[in-house]
Amino acid sequence: MSDNKIGDVSMIPLGGVGQIGKNMMVLEVNDELLIIDAGVMFPENDLLGIDLVIPDFTYVKENKDRVKAIVLTHGHEDHIGAMPYLLKELDLDVPIYGTKLTLGLLEGKLKEHRIKDKKLKVVNPGNLVKVSSFEVEFIKVNHSIADTCALALHTPLGPIVYASDFKFDQTPIDGGVADFHKLAELGDSEPGVLALFSDSTNVEHEGYTLSEKIVGHTIDNIFRGARERIIVATFASNIHRVQQIADAAFKYKRKIALTGRSMINNVEIARRLGYLTIAEDMIVDIRDCDNIPDNKIVLLTTGSQGEPMAALTRMSRGDHYHIKIDEGDTVVISASAIPGNEKFIGQTINQLFERGANVIYEDVSGVHVSGHASQEELKLMINLTKPKYLVPTHGEYRHLYRHAKLAEEVGIESDNIYIASLGDRIKFTEDRIYKTESIKAGDVLVDGLGIGDVGNIVLRDRRLLSEDGVIIVVLTIDNNGNILSGPDIVTRGFVYIRESEELIAEANSRVEEALRKCEENKVTEWSSLKKTIRDSLNNYIYKKIKRRPMILPIIMEV
Amino acid sequence: MSDNKIGDVSMIPLGGVGQIGKNMMVLEVNDELLIIDAGVMFPENDLLGIDLVIPDFTYVKENKDRVKAIVLTHGHEDHIGAMPYLLKELDLDVPIYGTKLTLGLLEGKLKEHRIKDKKLKVVNPGNLVKVSSFEVEFIKVNHSIADTCALALHTPLGPIVYASDFKFDQTPIDGGVADFHKLAELGDSEPGVLALFSDSTNVEHEGYTLSEKIVGHTIDNIFRGARERIIVATFASNIHRVQQIADAAFKYKRKIALTGRSMINNVEIARRLGYLTIAEDMIVDIRDCDNIPDNKIVLLTTGSQGEPMAALTRMSRGDHYHIKIDEGDTVVISASAIPGNEKFIGQTINQLFERGANVIYEDVSGVHVSGHASQEELKLMINLTKPKYLVPTHGEYRHLYRHAKLAEEVGIESDNIYIASLGDRIKFTEDRIYKTESIKAGDVLVDGLGIGDVGNIVLRDRRLLSEDGVIIVVLTIDNNGNILSGPDIVTRGFVYIRESEELIAEANSRVEEALRKCEENKVTEWSSLKKTIRDSLNNYIYKKIKRRPMILPIIMEV
Repeated sequence: MSDNKIGDVSMIPLGGVGQIGKNMMVLEVNDELLIIDAGVMFPENDLLGIDLVIPDFTYVKENKDRVKAIVLTHGHEDHIGAMPYLLKELDLDVPIYGTKLTLGLLEGKLKEHRIKDKKLKVVNPGNLVKVSSFEVEFIKVNHSIADTCALALHTPLGPIVYASDFKFDQTPIDGGVADFHKLAELGDSEPGVLALFSDSTNVEHEGYTLSEKIVGHTIDNIFRGARERIIVATFASNIHRVQQIADAAFKYKRKIALTGRSMINNVEIARRLGYLTIAEDMIVDIRDCDNIPDNKIVLLTTGSQGEPMAALTRMSRGDHYHIKIDEGDTVVISASAIPGNEKFIGQTINQLFERGANVIYEDVSGVHVSGHASQEELKLMINLTKPKYLVPTHGEYRHLYRHAKLAEEVGIESDNIYIASLGDRIKFTEDRIYKTESIKAGDVLVDGLGIGDVGNIVLRDRRLLSEDGVIIVVLTIDNNGNILSGPDIVTRGFVYIRESEELIAEANSRVEEALRKCEENKVTEWSSLKKTIRDSLNNYIYKKIKRRPMILPIIMEV
Repeated sequence: MSDNKIGDVSMIPLGGVGQIGKNMMVLEVNDELLIIDAGVMFPENDLLGIDLVIPDFTYVKENKDRVKAIVLTHGHEDHIGAMPYLLKELDLDVPIYGTKLTLGLLEGKLKEHRIKDKKLKVVNPGNLVKVSSFEVEFIKVNHSIADTCALALHTPLGPIVYASDFKFDQTPIDGGVADFHKLAELGDSEPGVLALFSDSTNVEHEGYTLSEKIVGHTIDNIFRGARERIIVATFASNIHRVQQIADAAFKYKRKIALTGRSMINNVEIARRLGYLTIAEDMIVDIRDCDNIPDNKIVLLTTGSQGEPMAALTRMSRGDHYHIKIDEGDTVVISASAIPGNEKFIGQTINQLFERGANVIYEDVSGVHVSGHASQEELKLMINLTKPKYLVPTHGEYRHLYRHAKLAEEVGIESDNIYIASLGDRIKFTEDRIYKTESIKAGDVLVDGLGIGDVGNIVLRDRRLLSEDGVIIVVLTIDNNGNILSGPDIVTRGFVYIRESEELIAEANSRVEEALRKCEENKVTEWSSLKKTIRDSLNNYIYKKIKRRPMILPIIMEV
């Protein structure tokens, strides 16, 4: 089953390398497995109709009995979003470790999926967890969600530091800077850090990522200047951002109303667990907004990515169930575009402006900072932990590559840096880091309730259908092969029928003509008939209008 | 037909406002029309299968006899790309004015569309053209294509400055700075500039847009450092960029090979017309590259936007007919992403890195500058021309809005600024600028040879088909309504059939069951039968797998 022998230490990325999202890693020491995170990825445009992408769980499924625990670094979708699928597919009964907020968010997710009785074990940053022969330390770092931890995974060859997503914020909102001392201590220990797995998301950015506190100043300025209603859209999971908005609301004597399902849920969880301090009387129901003067209210909403069904997007289109954008409203989009969403966000901004709002967005102001480390922080992480080996993670190939180059500048030898692909078993020894085998890994597509049933053939058909539509040709024949009725042509997504009757009529006679020839030549085999129909239509249509719809001949026998 | 009376001056945007691309404007003075540019827009992702978007020509078609001339500001697709469609639809025989390169590029386009015998009239920057009662001056400005002009459209109320796309480059490659003096002279004239129509594309950028010459320095540095093959991708129409690459090639003793149809065409046209100075012996056929040492060759290629079929994209995928990317190659992507293309470009960069190339791209170096004016240049344009009225153009709503705000800062009164929508007749008088009527205008979709035949219904069907595919249910009945064969189910793009036989079988029996009930209740009307099939399948499928494929019942009568 596995190349791992007693005494061996290896890591297997099942997600998050060569791609952004869907983070999942397996640590294998001797014959035991530890799973680190299990996240989703949101589908690219070419994955037509796909809702989510999750990791291929084949390896952990085949080695289920050797899995000893799951550890989670933080509560973002790309780190915990695939947990329900993992738990359902494997019916795992191992302990799941994470900080309070991380597990709080996971709990909500499991409830939605009706998964019960899992062993959720809350840890605090700084804790050391022992399970079977694994020892895992949770190390506080900063990120765009509270309660994020890096991990020190202790192995017989020394600790592996799994940095996950992080930044170093010198003035964080919750007062908790990253645990520099623990990272430094690991770097100074004997035999020293075996390997560092570090965040490549922002490796193209020079310098340092700005502190979350900067956003607070911008928000304060906006609140001070606004005379009427304020509407702020941000990521629902960015609890510190929400806190800063709530603080400004308190300072400028505005009540807060929430809209958007994930915003309402996340604020509820974060308040309940103590990550968000908003007095009860600060929050009003959105349906009561009309009773409050415009200069006494802030709306906190989802939709910062222009998602078609989110609350802010609905407001911009004018179909939000309760809020109508008015002249004088100040709308703040406190987020940056996730690549691929630029067009949606742009559209939302345009429509808000058209409705008379004053829109404040990232391109023109400091209403957002990233949660990921820039180049100088990545270097600091390397210099603090002084790892023997480096594995860049959380990035497309170009990010991993540039992170490798950055590490070389800091002094890591290029032989000691490994750019991983999904499913690589990365083996560590005292002298080298290398790949020993390829484990089955990849992207599993989720569409509705179907997991993995949409593959390349289905996607290729969807793509064909999306481009020029479909032409269906139906024919009824008797069992001697004589045509009883048809050919009838039905099209969808091809041309506007009412204005193309001539084209369709001509297409029909082309098919009839072709079938007549078949008859003359005594061709009665169904596959030949279908091919004849397809070829004659294909040629005619392409010549006539330069489109290539999918052509589907159907023969019914009576 | 028209609200324009003798003595009236109005402008009608048929493209380029509330959108980026598809630029087209009509100037109407008394009863005469002048067309300014006729460009295309590349379709957004949600326009499935659409190749191009062109303006709705209804107004100019209905008033064809009043059209006196067409003037073109520069040779980019979004300014001349719709000309073949305009000329074909209207069969116009009016003079077409433009600079030499602009008309050279147009000529190639007309040849492709087999349009002959058009009156192309070459003008030089600085020329004044008189046609019918119109007087148009061509004013040199800088942009990312050579030979770009702003226009002064002289009207009885004073000149309208139509700035089109521009930047002010103080150190341009061809030595020709913008004609500041003409712009200043117009601003100082009596009664002064009536209105300025100005480029809003880069209004979100502070300061000045960098000079094209900056890119030359970066390219020089790259050439100096490269030890093996250099491959540069850029916009084929960016002649000055191509010149700078050619200059570096000459300096570092490398030959140039071209790949990509538009690169080969544009370089040919620009060299023939004298806009590009590359000695004959500098250029080699790409098929002869293998005979030249890697450090003696530069490839100039298309594909800077990651277009699926372009030469660089093919190289990145490993299926270019001649060029194989090797370890040691330096690839320069000398362009920025047009919004919506980020993902494609990212993919190309990843794959080039994976093949071992050193990729230099915008995010990490100065290999590209914009061709559009930033805020300070936009202000300078206003201060030079001192217009009474301002109409921001070439932008989505948010760009137009911000340009309006910028103009207010410079001192234009807000009542004198008009944010236009497509088809607004913008009327000018001595005291005010206002909209008098709405002209039919909008986006016409081109798909293959079909112009405007794909509308909302077809697009909605394509979207439905793209998301969850199609289920076709066929049924043969006799003329008494008895079922002779079927129901047969055929699906495409829905599920992978081999792994979903059970689902399809169950769906089939649901349909049979529903039809049996129809029979019992003596329901034989086709529309009722079809509705029954659709409803029963819809319910079953959604419950079972949470997808909503298009369901197409087809009944054949024998």
